[in-house]
Amino acid sequence: MAPKQKYVYSFGGGKAEGRASMKNLLGGKGANLAEMSSLGIIVPSGFTITTEVCTYFQKGHTYPIGMKDQVNIALAKVEKDMGRKFNDPKDPLLLSVRSGARISMPGMMDTVLNLGLNDTTIKGLIDVSGDARFAYDSYRRFVMMYSNVVMGVDSELFEDALEKEKEANGVELDTDLSADSLKKLVKIFKAITKRVTKKAFPEKPEEQLYGGIGAVFGSWMVDRAISYRRINRIPEDWGTAVNVQAMVFGNAGEDCATGVAFTRDPATGENKFFGEFLINAQGEDVVAGIRTPQVIREGARQKGDAPSLEKVMPKLYKELDSIRLKLEKHYKDMQDIEFTIEHDKLWMLQTRTGKRTAEAALRCAVEMVKEKLISKTTAVARVEAGVLDQLLHPSFDPKAKKVVLAKGLPASPGAATGMVVFTAEAAVEWSEKGKATILCRKETSPEDIEGMNSANGILTGRGGMTSHAAVVARGMGKCCVAGCGALDISAKSKTMKVAGKTLKEGDWISINGSSGEVMLGEVKTIPPKMSGNFGTFMKWVDEIRDMKVRTNAETARDAKQALDFGAEGIGLCRTEHMFFEGERLTIFREMIMAKDLAGRKAALKRLLPIQRKDFEGLFKVMGGLPITVRLLDPPLHEFVPHDAAGQQEMAKIMKVSVNEIKAKVESLSEFNPMLGHRGCRLGVTYPEIYDMQVQAIMEAAINVSKKAKKNIIPEIMIPLVGTVKELSMLKANAIEVINSVFKARKTKLQYMIGTMIEIPRAALTAGEIAEEAEFFSFGTNDLTQMTFGYSRDDAGVFLPEYVEKKVLPEDPFQVLDQTGVGQLVELAAKNGRAVRKGMKLGICGEHGGEPESVKFCYRTGLDYVSCSPFRVPIAKLAAAQATLEARAAKKKK
Amino acid sequence: MAPKQKYVYSFGGGKAEGRASMKNLLGGKGANLAEMSSLGIIVPSGFTITTEVCTYFQKGHTYPIGMKDQVNIALAKVEKDMGRKFNDPKDPLLLSVRSGARISMPGMMDTVLNLGLNDTTIKGLIDVSGDARFAYDSYRRFVMMYSNVVMGVDSELFEDALEKEKEANGVELDTDLSADSLKKLVKIFKAITKRVTKKAFPEKPEEQLYGGIGAVFGSWMVDRAISYRRINRIPEDWGTAVNVQAMVFGNAGEDCATGVAFTRDPATGENKFFGEFLINAQGEDVVAGIRTPQVIREGARQKGDAPSLEKVMPKLYKELDSIRLKLEKHYKDMQDIEFTIEHDKLWMLQTRTGKRTAEAALRCAVEMVKEKLISKTTAVARVEAGVLDQLLHPSFDPKAKKVVLAKGLPASPGAATGMVVFTAEAAVEWSEKGKATILCRKETSPEDIEGMNSANGILTGRGGMTSHAAVVARGMGKCCVAGCGALDISAKSKTMKVAGKTLKEGDWISINGSSGEVMLGEVKTIPPKMSGNFGTFMKWVDEIRDMKVRTNAETARDAKQALDFGAEGIGLCRTEHMFFEGERLTIFREMIMAKDLAGRKAALKRLLPIQRKDFEGLFKVMGGLPITVRLLDPPLHEFVPHDAAGQQEMAKIMKVSVNEIKAKVESLSEFNPMLGHRGCRLGVTYPEIYDMQVQAIMEAAINVSKKAKKNIIPEIMIPLVGTVKELSMLKANAIEVINSVFKARKTKLQYMIGTMIEIPRAALTAGEIAEEAEFFSFGTNDLTQMTFGYSRDDAGVFLPEYVEKKVLPEDPFQVLDQTGVGQLVELAAKNGRAVRKGMKLGICGEHGGEPESVKFCYRTGLDYVSCSPFRVPIAKLAAAQATLEARAAKKKK
Repeated sequence: MAPKQKYVYSFGGGKAEGRASMKNLLGGKGANLAEMSSLGIIVPSGFTITTEVCTYFQKGHTYPIGMKDQVNIALAKVEKDMGRKFNDPKDPLLLSVRSGARISMPGMMDTVLNLGLNDTTIKGLIDVSGDARFAYDSYRRFVMMYSNVVMGVDSELFEDALEKEKEANGVELDTDLSADSLKKLVKIFKAITKRVTKKAFPEKPEEQLYGGIGAVFGSWMVDRAISYRRINRIPEDWGTAVNVQAMVFGNAGEDCATGVAFTRDPATGENKFFGEFLINAQGEDVVAGIRTPQVIREGARQKGDAPSLEKVMPKLYKELDSIRLKLEKHYKDMQDIEFTIEHDKLWMLQTRTGKRTAEAALRCAVEMVKEKLISKTTAVARVEAGVLDQLLHPSFDPKAKKVVLAKGLPASPGAATGMVVFTAEAAVEWSEKGKATILCRKETSPEDIEGMNSANGILTGRGGMTSHAAVVARGMGKCCVAGCGALDISAKSKTMKVAGKTLKEGDWISINGSSGEVMLGEVKTIPPKMSGNFGTFMKWVDEIRDMKVRTNAETARDAKQALDFGAEGIGLCRTEHMFFEGERLTIFREMIMAKDLAGRKAALKRLLPIQRKDFEGLFKVMGGLPITVRLLDPPLHEFVPHDAAGQQEMAKIMKVSVNEIKAKVESLSEFNPMLGHRGCRLGVTYPEIYDMQVQAIMEAAINVSKKAKKNIIPEIMIPLVGTVKELSMLKANAIEVINSVFKARKTKLQYMIGTMIEIPRAALTAGEIAEEAEFFSFGTNDLTQMTFGYSRDDAGVFLPEYVEKKVLPEDPFQVLDQTGVGQLVELAAKNGRAVRKGMKLGICGEHGGEPESVKFCYRTGLDYVSCSPFRVPIAKLAAAQATLEARAAKKKK
Repeated sequence: MAPKQKYVYSFGGGKAEGRASMKNLLGGKGANLAEMSSLGIIVPSGFTITTEVCTYFQKGHTYPIGMKDQVNIALAKVEKDMGRKFNDPKDPLLLSVRSGARISMPGMMDTVLNLGLNDTTIKGLIDVSGDARFAYDSYRRFVMMYSNVVMGVDSELFEDALEKEKEANGVELDTDLSADSLKKLVKIFKAITKRVTKKAFPEKPEEQLYGGIGAVFGSWMVDRAISYRRINRIPEDWGTAVNVQAMVFGNAGEDCATGVAFTRDPATGENKFFGEFLINAQGEDVVAGIRTPQVIREGARQKGDAPSLEKVMPKLYKELDSIRLKLEKHYKDMQDIEFTIEHDKLWMLQTRTGKRTAEAALRCAVEMVKEKLISKTTAVARVEAGVLDQLLHPSFDPKAKKVVLAKGLPASPGAATGMVVFTAEAAVEWSEKGKATILCRKETSPEDIEGMNSANGILTGRGGMTSHAAVVARGMGKCCVAGCGALDISAKSKTMKVAGKTLKEGDWISINGSSGEVMLGEVKTIPPKMSGNFGTFMKWVDEIRDMKVRTNAETARDAKQALDFGAEGIGLCRTEHMFFEGERLTIFREMIMAKDLAGRKAALKRLLPIQRKDFEGLFKVMGGLPITVRLLDPPLHEFVPHDAAGQQEMAKIMKVSVNEIKAKVESLSEFNPMLGHRGCRLGVTYPEIYDMQVQAIMEAAINVSKKAKKNIIPEIMIPLVGTVKELSMLKANAIEVINSVFKARKTKLQYMIGTMIEIPRAALTAGEIAEEAEFFSFGTNDLTQMTFGYSRDDAGVFLPEYVEKKVLPEDPFQVLDQTGVGQLVELAAKNGRAVRKGMKLGICGEHGGEPESVKFCYRTGLDYVSCSPFRVPIAKLAAAQATLEARAAKKKK
């Protein structure tokens, strides 16, 4: 027989069966409770039921054989540690049942507190606490929570009953209700539950316990949890653990408190204790943001704030601060902790790696290196590449005129402008229509996740820096102003009153997540500046990184921006962007309308100097850095107007009849333009277009390299190649043009001619194509379209559903599909290099700025990735991390 | 030093350096002249310059070192054999210079005859022949031909001068011109050449010889030859050989003749000597079809025909007939021969495998087996699979009313209807617009090739069964009526007078290539019937073949047709075809318009019995043969009207507003429908549609299998799968539906659920998909679209140009691209079978009926191909040939 499987891990009393490294099995909370216990930090005793049980549970809502025996043994240990017994009518041990997944999903899953109370044990609690009010308050909270979480009763029914009781007693706060009122409420609550569920509220503590455990496991599969996992890319099969733990009470009197804190400031990263607490409250009260909490550290207190913990309970503050330092030293990272003070005794309830803004992540990483807490490589490995995006977003122009309506808490930094919406649904709907929104809520709840994700920014009227809105927004890298009490938000009437104004749905506002300001209208933003920490950090990134990062840019301005961000060349210059406006467009259209080769050549001759000047601008800005120029790619119909007005205007400018324009537009129209007459197919039909472009590139390169004395090596890229013959034919044409430029200018210049690998057939025949191509650039946008058979323009109809129904792990246009599309990239890289040793390989699809895709490119041996200017630092960081990961993998071997 | 390379091969005088198997090096003509010479058949002595020299020549129009020495040696041998000397003023040896490629390209390349004549040698020729008229006629022909072929002078200039001379002398025929006139013409011709080319006509025979050789090599690259090779898929690098041969004269008097013949009837295959000749003529006169020739065999003579060779020259006929039998016995195949009789001496000029119609190919193959000349496998290997198409074309309905306008020669069998056009250009243009045409010409020339390929049929006013039109049409498998003298065709006025009627361009006619009838209007056609030979032949095919052939069919009628052609199942039943008309379409549109699931289900419920009945029909016809049913594939917008009238009508029927219809149509429209919301993507969004279809399939199968007591195993195919999750989800749905059908009907049935591999990603992840799919069917139409990134609907803009410019060897939608698309098919087959041993694999794209693609499928290990009913015999023959090729390859190893 196999050894009995261990489903339950005990902790508490300075010992633990688990440890921090067992997160996959015990979840983050359970593993860290065990670790803290082993470290000698006082935690309420308890035990963790493993994530394996969760997976088992999802199949049939039953538990594996033997688990209950292990629970009994663990529960006996808790009873022993805490000196109380479960279901003891005299001095009952009460339990909390909490979820704890591998990574934190704040507020996403269910919790039941005060478990073990019934009409018998309540008496024991009253006796022991000497506080009937507290005891009945605990009881009514338990009944309410359990009925809601385990038995599925709408919590509003209980809230209504609570409100009624308060009205009847003429009081305003829950805390003003008497023990009798609360006792009455317990009865009312139980009656509500019975009425709704047709089942009596369970009296047996054991039944309560398994009800709680089952509900927590079950909550892994509720919609909001599924939605959260999708947004945060958490696999479903990870499951959650369940932590059953002895209750300690922060709400048992004025010598009690509960709080949450970060070992450093999670918004800025500053190395100062940062946290909030509430006297005489349960932990959920702080997180839910219903009461505005007090700060922990006196230095953090602002004018008008309630006193700090440091002031109110100085001894306990010191104890807590020493635990903070101990935890940081042990975990070597910023921690997010929860604690409860019960009658002047400090209990730690949780520690975990603290979520932080990108700014904080950077500052922590840089400062911890300086503090010699971590190494540079750890610093680089630790900052999630994707979050840098937050730092690279624009901020408000300090010169812009601002009408500040109010000020809230700077909960998640950044600058956001958008139209006011009052519901998550509206935020989703409006954003689907391409409208920018700011989601304005009294407070947010887990049900709002989708809306928060869709909105440009989040503004709440209530709650602190650790409120749901603040925590989730920071996790999303979304700008958030929280707890802005000056706002009178009514979701019902879709209005928000502030500073004497009434804003309606659709009105523009701007919020500053770094200052907390709420402003009227659409305030102008400016591009981000890189802070000192950013510079230091990126220097380390560059020290480690060994894959190049280029940018996609067509204008000297974009190129300059990308250079500021550290781009090492241009990986994709889309020449057609140079034809899309003004006079150029007119000339280009004349070329399209031309009846013969001579007419087309005449128009192209006029485009030549314009295009040459564009290239000169780019070459100048980029100095000697490599630039890949892609020849004309889109189908010609993208350059002609499809509406009557546009056609009339074009007819007027061209001095031809509207019918002629219409006929041309019609003749150019295609059923499937994605798969139509574009890219090198145009080059084959109209070689004169590519000839002009090649001439412009080479002349520009000669001009600039002479003036700037820089060695410019243009990389000419022929797009949409599917057969080697296309490339060999167009390459021969290009070389002919280049040689005649050399002859005319009496000079020579190095150059390369290569192709984009964006057609599946090109990837499949890369060996043949490499005979002609001097470099490959993977155009993974089109490659994804054709490999999946998805039109990017149309897939919106089913792609979100596909991601939701898990047909696809994620949108393949955002994250490179390594299984399918990646297979083609690997094949082409391998076969290309087999034919042309050391061939230069890069990627220029949008995946070039997505961290996981960048890492894939590194593993595939690409020389560079190319992405939009703002994503250059992200790509660089991901590339450095890929290097570190490869080193680690090598070490393992 | 390497041994000297041999560039020149001698033949003649009962000996030869080459042999028949050296076609690649010597071309067909040269190799067979050598072979005949070795067999003791009398041929004019000569030598062949190899195809390798052609390849060398194309690079710089020069010859390899040493070639000229070898020519000199070979020429000396010719002089010795023939007893004459080149450039001998007393008795000059004259030469012909002819092309000879690996396979015959009739009339495509250049020839120069009578080479060696000049103002000195002409005297010797006059003396020796004793016929100044003949000598000068030879001389003027030579000057004309050489000036045109070698020096590029338009031959019309000479024709004009010839006409003038005839007018001046008041004669009508060339042959009526006197020696003096001809002598004068030689001078005039030379003057024309000098005027046009600014060069004197060369007098030196050696210069003439190399001029001729160079012109023939150069003619390999002229447009019409390139065009012919493209149509007939002949690689350019094969090159042509040049045959230099002593002239013998069929035009040296009334005891001279020249002719072409086939050892059997090339139209019917009957084992009877078949040929034509002209007394006192050169060979080109017969082939060009300018004089209507006489038949060779007396039995073939029709009333009013000139006497046969058998009658006119009985001794020579017997000699020729014995050579016919010798050649057939030696080559074991039907031969196409050319001969010349010079003063009662028979010279063989050429033998080669004879081109034949499909009917003749079949009859020859079957009868040669019966004659024990060849084996069954040789018979099966010999008939080109593609030509069976000719036999499978419809013929005219005997019951149809016919107005026969005239009767010509039944030059290439079949039935064709179309609109009259008078130029090749018009045939090409009209056919590009989708119009059926009959190309009507006085006579065709090699310049007409493209037009002949585009037209439905060819009709000529002049020329015999071996005229250019007849030979080319048979090669193309195109219906042709030749030499219809009753027609008065004027290409200039675009009219054709016949039987008192004047037909204009665009008028409909019908031609019967098997009877020679030309009929007014569009005569009704009927499907082909299989002849006895066809049945015998296909039996042999089936004996050899070990890959199955299925058909693509949706209706019981098509299925029946395919069964008659020998289909072994249905490989693709496209269920959407069942929704495209009448009441079904209305119901289907109601489903599309439905606002919710309930509405859709209500419509589907009404479609269920209709669909079930369709399937019952199919299952009944097919007995127990396997049937693969593909669930709904096209996007929904294909089912709604896009024009205003259609939308109004739909609104009326649906009883909704036109705007509602418009809005729905708009919401369904897509930028790239090929890559849009279709196939299994619809199944994921609207599972109820597939549910209905699966239910209909299974209920039909149960009903029919009960009644017919046949074991029906439906193969349910889910289209457009790109990820295994799509399939697993939809398969699970289908199984649920199937189980409920089983439960309701209290019975069970075997079934299979599989998928189409038509998305590149599906091929790349076939291993994963095979975990769920019980079979794969390769949808190579879509797979080709996506692998190449070509939209079939749009590629017409550039694909013909691509094939012309040799970017692609052929249209990949006609012939499977084995390099690219094939790679995906091989990969998927291998990875699919690695996961699911012996997995059933098939192909259902249109490539399933194309011989080369079928052979590829065989080599890839597919279990079956599926094609349209009319192509089933072609696929079967190709499959059998693939088996034979595999056996041969195995033997070689």
